[in-house]
Amino acid sequence: MLLSHLAARLGLTLAGEDREFRGLNTLEAAQEDEVSFLANPRYIPALKTTRACAVILSPGMAGRTARALLSDNPYRDFARASALFARPQGEFSGISPEARIDPSASLGENCVVYPFVFVGPRTAIGAGSTLFPGVYVGEDCLLGARCLLYPGAVLLSGTVLGDDCVLGAGAVLGTDGFGFARMDGRMRKIPQIGSVRLASGVDVGANTCIDRATLGVTFVGRDSKLDNLVQIGHNVTLGEECLLVAQAGLAGSVTAGDRVTIAGQAGIAGHLSLGDDVTVGPQAGVAQDIAPGASGGGSPFMSRDLFLRCAVLAPKLPELHQRVRRLEQELRTLRERLAALDPREDP
Amino acid sequence: MLLSHLAARLGLTLAGEDREFRGLNTLEAAQEDEVSFLANPRYIPALKTTRACAVILSPGMAGRTARALLSDNPYRDFARASALFARPQGEFSGISPEARIDPSASLGENCVVYPFVFVGPRTAIGAGSTLFPGVYVGEDCLLGARCLLYPGAVLLSGTVLGDDCVLGAGAVLGTDGFGFARMDGRMRKIPQIGSVRLASGVDVGANTCIDRATLGVTFVGRDSKLDNLVQIGHNVTLGEECLLVAQAGLAGSVTAGDRVTIAGQAGIAGHLSLGDDVTVGPQAGVAQDIAPGASGGGSPFMSRDLFLRCAVLAPKLPELHQRVRRLEQELRTLRERLAALDPREDP
Amino acid sequence: MLLSHLAARLGLTLAGEDREFRGLNTLEAAQEDEVSFLANPRYIPALKTTRACAVILSPGMAGRTARALLSDNPYRDFARASALFARPQGEFSGISPEARIDPSASLGENCVVYPFVFVGPRTAIGAGSTLFPGVYVGEDCLLGARCLLYPGAVLLSGTVLGDDCVLGAGAVLGTDGFGFARMDGRMRKIPQIGSVRLASGVDVGANTCIDRATLGVTFVGRDSKLDNLVQIGHNVTLGEECLLVAQAGLAGSVTAGDRVTIAGQAGIAGHLSLGDDVTVGPQAGVAQDIAPGASGGGSPFMSRDLFLRCAVLAPKLPELHQRVRRLEQELRTLRERLAALDPREDP
Repeated sequence: MLLSHLAARLGLTLAGEDREFRGLNTLEAAQEDEVSFLANPRYIPALKTTRACAVILSPGMAGRTARALLSDNPYRDFARASALFARPQGEFSGISPEARIDPSASLGENCVVYPFVFVGPRTAIGAGSTLFPGVYVGEDCLLGARCLLYPGAVLLSGTVLGDDCVLGAGAVLGTDGFGFARMDGRMRKIPQIGSVRLASGVDVGANTCIDRATLGVTFVGRDSKLDNLVQIGHNVTLGEECLLVAQAGLAGSVTAGDRVTIAGQAGIAGHLSLGDDVTVGPQAGVAQDIAPGASGGGSPFMSRDLFLRCAVLAPKLPELHQRVRRLEQELRTLRERLAALDPREDP
Repeated sequence: MLLSHLAARLGLTLAGEDREFRGLNTLEAAQEDEVSFLANPRYIPALKTTRACAVILSPGMAGRTARALLSDNPYRDFARASALFARPQGEFSGISPEARIDPSASLGENCVVYPFVFVGPRTAIGAGSTLFPGVYVGEDCLLGARCLLYPGAVLLSGTVLGDDCVLGAGAVLGTDGFGFARMDGRMRKIPQIGSVRLASGVDVGANTCIDRATLGVTFVGRDSKLDNLVQIGHNVTLGEECLLVAQAGLAGSVTAGDRVTIAGQAGIAGHLSLGDDVTVGPQAGVAQDIAPGASGGGSPFMSRDLFLRCAVLAPKLPELHQRVRRLEQELRTLRERLAALDPREDP
Repeated sequence: MLLSHLAARLGLTLAGEDREFRGLNTLEAAQEDEVSFLANPRYIPALKTTRACAVILSPGMAGRTARALLSDNPYRDFARASALFARPQGEFSGISPEARIDPSASLGENCVVYPFVFVGPRTAIGAGSTLFPGVYVGEDCLLGARCLLYPGAVLLSGTVLGDDCVLGAGAVLGTDGFGFARMDGRMRKIPQIGSVRLASGVDVGANTCIDRATLGVTFVGRDSKLDNLVQIGHNVTLGEECLLVAQAGLAGSVTAGDRVTIAGQAGIAGHLSLGDDVTVGPQAGVAQDIAPGASGGGSPFMSRDLFLRCAVLAPKLPELHQRVRRLEQELRTLRERLAALDPREDP
């Protein structure tokens, strides 16, 4: 493809001489026939050393490379360029005779079902969906159109997916919630008779788990994106366009609004409520409701400003102890001197 | 079913007029033909707005809803009611000809083996067990009666399960412990020649991993329950009725007594010992042995009282620094005034 | 085997009478026909009670057991002894007719391919590799010799493995990195057109996830070892002989040098750089670059010394607050007394 063609397709300005290129790569790894991009100022120094034949960057950076594609949002336009080069996973087509699809299940048009897929009774799968090898879809599930279930993804009975959902390899939806009670002298499972429902456009990462509801439904709203190894407890309700980063965990019955971001390894205790537009930092431990729009981190969870100040002060704890010790000594000295000046009043 | 029938089956008192109902649901989501329950005081306000036709609640709450089923333990009785409506996962029966079962393996009566299951040599599976699609059971395994292995669960060689064990989808038992040593100039695996053994009634969550022992056995005691995405290192020994919540991790050779609870995302360092009835809070980091009956949290791990006090004080660290700075200033002022009063003694 | 034969094979000295033995076990669990070892001083008391017929230990410990195999590195020599007793997982051989291998894929000599394995177009698998049931290897992958892919391991398109790589059950390589941007009013995935490459001798634990690069490659260097449930973000680069313990997480574009150790449940924020020989403690939260050779822990990450001092002081926070309160009271008293002595100067 020519740089001028790429510029035309993305509506960008080409600064510098036209040339053919073969693909996209990072500034550091790009070869002479690859295009790169600059979105994070951290990588400005790499502009000098990159071998990329052209770089997608903001107009303010023009002139720093031999050829540039000028963009007011280089990250977005890099993403759009990538889409031109992206290929979907897998090349299989049709319905494998080595898949086991219950006769009462239905498949929409143009579905792709690989070998070793199991689809249970009364399940309906929307048109254009793809089920990779090892996928299990239990009974009474309902999948929208164009869903993509990567190898080994598991949907237990009654799971509902909207259109355009993507389930990572090994993701598990509808496993029993973690509820037990002592009955007749032994720990017994509380039956989990609810289900899991994802709205349309939801992505679930590899090996992420979403528990079915004890009663009712565990719900993930439209266009919410879950990374790998995330845990969603029973009866959680997530709003739209939420982002849950890898290894985050939400205990049972957490409710989150729209556009909530929960960073990696953060945890939210059970039954809490997070308002719209909340941002929870990495490894944070949330034990209280969070008001809409709040942003913070730490364990216990604090506002972002307070958290950052505490993070700066935390390593000064030994120094603080020393200062307090010194204050105690000096105070003792002062008291003694004062007593010497005025012996009657000393207690 | 009639409310009066449910009351009779559970031994509860029906307060209010009898009626037919169709199922169970949460206070918030219940329709007019569903029964709900109140166990957590947090949800008392929902009693006013619920559409549920009846609520299982404690006698002290009677009169707050049109119809109630009075119970001295509403959570337990809701669980018992749920059991009346719960259906097991899956509807397959018999042994699929598309499963690969080694001729030297044995299956007890009434086992269900789905397609795409692999069972290795000399493995014995107890009566009434169910193996969902994609389950792998290696050689020389021994499974008790009525075990339930959800899709993609993996039991590597020599794994032993008691009766009534449940393995979540993607759970992995018997993977090699994480042990390496430098030999002949390269990092080499310490062979892991032990195994994994679960007593009866153990639940293992989805995508949870239990490493085989380096030597001997990694052991989980009777009726212990492990949530999703939990990590159990090699040579761990867990007692009976332990609860390990999602994303908790136990390093190698940890020993825990009976009724130990480890909350979500908590971690226990290697070779430590936790007594009976210990409770470890969420995200706690345990680096020392814990005496029986102790309850706490935090990293480092503290008693519950101390942890809660520290959690209250942690966000006051900036304020504490300011108070110490002010003390230092005031002390300087006092010293100067004292020196003015008594100049000879000033050092 | 005779103890004298074991001593000869490992080049150790047998102290005590020769005897036959059957296997290896821990000091605590060993029977009379088993050999054990002592590497961790914590277990010295177990020397008195072990039933092991001989113990591999350092010469300084000789005489504490009836029979000993004297070693200057008991842990390494125990590992070498274990290797004599270790058996590989699985007994299948050949290429199962129930595996689905694309006609354009190639398999080296002596590969083992179990039933229910899927291998995509143009993929090449090196000689002596083993693919357990449920393994998925997508199109255009390249695997070195003697790779071991445990049940349900997933390699998405374009993944490259060196020789002697081991992938745990349920491990997922090449899943899309977690990158989204708002385009045309909806959250859309940034296409992830890079891949994953492991050098030779890399171990990946069960259910661990390694994201494909947005562009270029996510890379793990020679002989690095990843435990279970680890998350590696897109465009991470790890050096040689790194150790990543269970549930650790590396966000996108982290770069780590050689011999970097990251303990369990620790997290590294995106775009950071860790030098050679860095050690990060358990549950640490790293938000800044770390210089080569540094060792530490905590969140925020601190040097080991500082971290340990802070860990000792953290539970003393309530006491510190009390000391500061007392200082404030005493200072007030002093100021009043001083004012009484010298009323003119009091502000």
